[in-house]
Amino acid sequence: MELNEALVRLAELQKKRYAYQTASSSLYLDGTTVAPKDTAEGRGVALGVLAGEEHKLFSAPETGELLDFLWGRKEELDQPHRRQVEELRRSYAQLTRIPAEEYMEYAILTNEAGDVWRRAKEASDFALFRPVLEKLVAFNIKFAGYYDSAKAPYDALLNEYERGVDMAYLDGFFATLRARIVPLLRAVMEKEPPEDGFLRRHCPVEAQRRFSDYLMEVLGLDRAHCAIGETEHPYTLNFNNKDVRITTHYEETNLASSMYSVIHEGGHAKYELGISDDVQYTCLAGGVSMGVHESQSRFYENLIGRSLPFIQAIFPKMREFFLEQLSDVTAEQFYRAVNKVQPSLIRTEADELTYCLHIMVRYEIEKQLISGTLAVKDVPETWNRLYKEYLGVDVPDDRRGCLQDSHWSGGAFGYFPSYALGSAYGAQMLKNMEGDIDVWGPVSRGDLSGVSAWLGDKVHRYGGLLEPAGVVKNACGQFDPAVFAGYLEQKYTELYHL
Amino acid sequence: MELNEALVRLAELQKKRYAYQTASSSLYLDGTTVAPKDTAEGRGVALGVLAGEEHKLFSAPETGELLDFLWGRKEELDQPHRRQVEELRRSYAQLTRIPAEEYMEYAILTNEAGDVWRRAKEASDFALFRPVLEKLVAFNIKFAGYYDSAKAPYDALLNEYERGVDMAYLDGFFATLRARIVPLLRAVMEKEPPEDGFLRRHCPVEAQRRFSDYLMEVLGLDRAHCAIGETEHPYTLNFNNKDVRITTHYEETNLASSMYSVIHEGGHAKYELGISDDVQYTCLAGGVSMGVHESQSRFYENLIGRSLPFIQAIFPKMREFFLEQLSDVTAEQFYRAVNKVQPSLIRTEADELTYCLHIMVRYEIEKQLISGTLAVKDVPETWNRLYKEYLGVDVPDDRRGCLQDSHWSGGAFGYFPSYALGSAYGAQMLKNMEGDIDVWGPVSRGDLSGVSAWLGDKVHRYGGLLEPAGVVKNACGQFDPAVFAGYLEQKYTELYHL
Repeated sequence: MELNEALVRLAELQKKRYAYQTASSSLYLDGTTVAPKDTAEGRGVALGVLAGEEHKLFSAPETGELLDFLWGRKEELDQPHRRQVEELRRSYAQLTRIPAEEYMEYAILTNEAGDVWRRAKEASDFALFRPVLEKLVAFNIKFAGYYDSAKAPYDALLNEYERGVDMAYLDGFFATLRARIVPLLRAVMEKEPPEDGFLRRHCPVEAQRRFSDYLMEVLGLDRAHCAIGETEHPYTLNFNNKDVRITTHYEETNLASSMYSVIHEGGHAKYELGISDDVQYTCLAGGVSMGVHESQSRFYENLIGRSLPFIQAIFPKMREFFLEQLSDVTAEQFYRAVNKVQPSLIRTEADELTYCLHIMVRYEIEKQLISGTLAVKDVPETWNRLYKEYLGVDVPDDRRGCLQDSHWSGGAFGYFPSYALGSAYGAQMLKNMEGDIDVWGPVSRGDLSGVSAWLGDKVHRYGGLLEPAGVVKNACGQFDPAVFAGYLEQKYTELYHL
Repeated sequence: MELNEALVRLAELQKKRYAYQTASSSLYLDGTTVAPKDTAEGRGVALGVLAGEEHKLFSAPETGELLDFLWGRKEELDQPHRRQVEELRRSYAQLTRIPAEEYMEYAILTNEAGDVWRRAKEASDFALFRPVLEKLVAFNIKFAGYYDSAKAPYDALLNEYERGVDMAYLDGFFATLRARIVPLLRAVMEKEPPEDGFLRRHCPVEAQRRFSDYLMEVLGLDRAHCAIGETEHPYTLNFNNKDVRITTHYEETNLASSMYSVIHEGGHAKYELGISDDVQYTCLAGGVSMGVHESQSRFYENLIGRSLPFIQAIFPKMREFFLEQLSDVTAEQFYRAVNKVQPSLIRTEADELTYCLHIMVRYEIEKQLISGTLAVKDVPETWNRLYKEYLGVDVPDDRRGCLQDSHWSGGAFGYFPSYALGSAYGAQMLKNMEGDIDVWGPVSRGDLSGVSAWLGDKVHRYGGLLEPAGVVKNACGQFDPAVFAGYLEQKYTELYHL
């Protein structure tokens, strides 16, 4: 085989994967937005076939031979091709180490588990979910061995979501955060909470839709390449760097809910739209890791979106959209209301300060589940104990406790820490950005172009060209969670006059 | 190979085709409804790969061997399996007779041709489209030879859209229609036209959307399995018999436009939703031919939807949706207005009586183009001459002339006659239906369940289990275009007091 021919085949292989993923994404998008209610079965049949074909292609011996051939000539490859081969070899090795029958069994299990979880959550009945969760945990322990038998199982899983991150690292990371967030939270809770009743005023969905369009404009999202839809749970879906979709969910009595969903998903979208053309239709297209992705969404949502300069910039326009609802509210009151600290039960509704505590509960439980020191049957009790310990709240039922998130039902163990890492990455990016450019002057005038350009240059454009740690290094320098803790201390000290 | 194993492989093969088609349909649906404007390129890449994979699978020697093996044992197969093998062998033979490079070249050509046609139409510039059309005609003449070298090229193409139909048959069919429609039209045009100015009154899109929901309810379309979207040109898309989508296009000053689009596409949807579960995920799922499909859409649109009993049934409700617009209009005035005869330039806006004349123009031109007796450069002149001859109208430009339809740019030569055949099939189905059940009593009360049940039993449930001619025989008996001509004569004699 000639090198050039091999490179052509490499491009074709990746284009096929792009096509399969695009097809599946399109069906997912349809299923969650406009598809009629009782149509999941037919989509399931198609998705099953497409996943099977993709699996067959990427575990085929010829694929392995092609990748080995190219790896043998890696000195002759340019950096993008070397990275492609490196990534594809990694996933090939993983895929071929999982026996085909276990792979299929697991696919069926995670498919069913979603349904069981939904029913269990609705009924607040952990016993219903328990047998499925036991199987999911057992599979993940086994798969961790396939991923990297030299690592502890949970380390191997963590590595899947944020390469290079392990328990030793996260234990330190979370210890730093906990040591500084817990006393900060205690001090905040002794103060008078800000007034936020006006956030519950009735806002028609139609006005909220127009407001979303405005927010996307402020974020600099090009509507020729980014559409917004409506789903039960907001998400971002990337077809390629010219076609990204975000979704939101409108609540008539919670204006801030969709507002911050749009800004959060908008941050994900900015990342995907900013990835270089050079890596499109390859395995390096798309954000590099969950942690880095969350750093971008949470950057826009919290660091920018919940800042006073940003709110002051958009508030005059907000009052036009919500004339009745906000006529007696000032920008500063709004700013205080959307930054109100309130230890609570539900992760997705948590404020910026307590959010990481929700993540720590999940981290502790996952770590023990996968290490075998916690039995699935004891999850609710442990969950409730940790919520009391970390957040000081009593969990009244499993629906609002250990059944609230979909992640485990989808087989994702080791994903949660990415959220906290992303928050911390973002805070350090902001600090560096402030050293490089005038951030707050333009933001206070509603101009995010400088912010976008900085993130585009330091993070977005690379896609998967660098490893996650390389992107973090690029944008954060030497990562230090104390920067995030310091950011929180400063913000809440000012907000609550500590 | 064991027979049972071969049947399992047959089912798998067809499920793969279903998955590829579902994926492509989903991307098409997305592209025409919610996708952002500048995102076609990425979808094109994915669609190209998926089409290539499907082609590879269905032209693979192993597929041919499997089909040959099963055909050799056809006496042992039940009728559905025999039909599946028969259909798949037919398409396998066709696909493998087309050289792969010609197939790809043609795929690229039709993809580009769509764009060129759109620009040519916009600019009303036939010269721009001409070189592409020449290539398309040349390809179709060549492909006709691959389809069936024993047939005249245009006969081979016609056979693709309505198996068993050829020029000899259509010449007779259209001659019968022309002989009776032309004098009828002449008589109608001597009469005073009905008042229809109120159809141009302004109707807000929101009210039209609610009216669409109502119409779908009247048609008995189960919204858990059938959604409605909005596109530039209305269409029906079937994923499977539990998931069908229709689209419409709202014009604020043309209430009847979307109304009859919804009823027309609703007729297509009824067909697809009525196909038996037994044939799902096989090549027999989906309507059997274009002609039979149009018989169903035009049945609901014209035979039911433009009938006085139907309009009388829904008119009280219509007046609720369009209080201002219809307060001074009676059901009978509305009935006369939507049946106004007016020879015109645009096929899709034609009334029921002149519609077939538009089709005859296209039939004559296609026949000569593919037979080589008409040069592409002479299409506009011939088009304009025939419009004058058949419809008595002067074509002012090619945009409203030979560039109006997308069909040829998509490579569809031989498709148009299906529209006229469908109209004629439908009229004869109605006659038979009237012999079997009370059609108009229930329809005049807005109850279409009897109509649906009859069509479901005689047409819908079969899908591709019968050949098109078998379905026509089932629902029409011995097909006779004079029945359609008689229907038109009776309808317009009454309407225009001839």
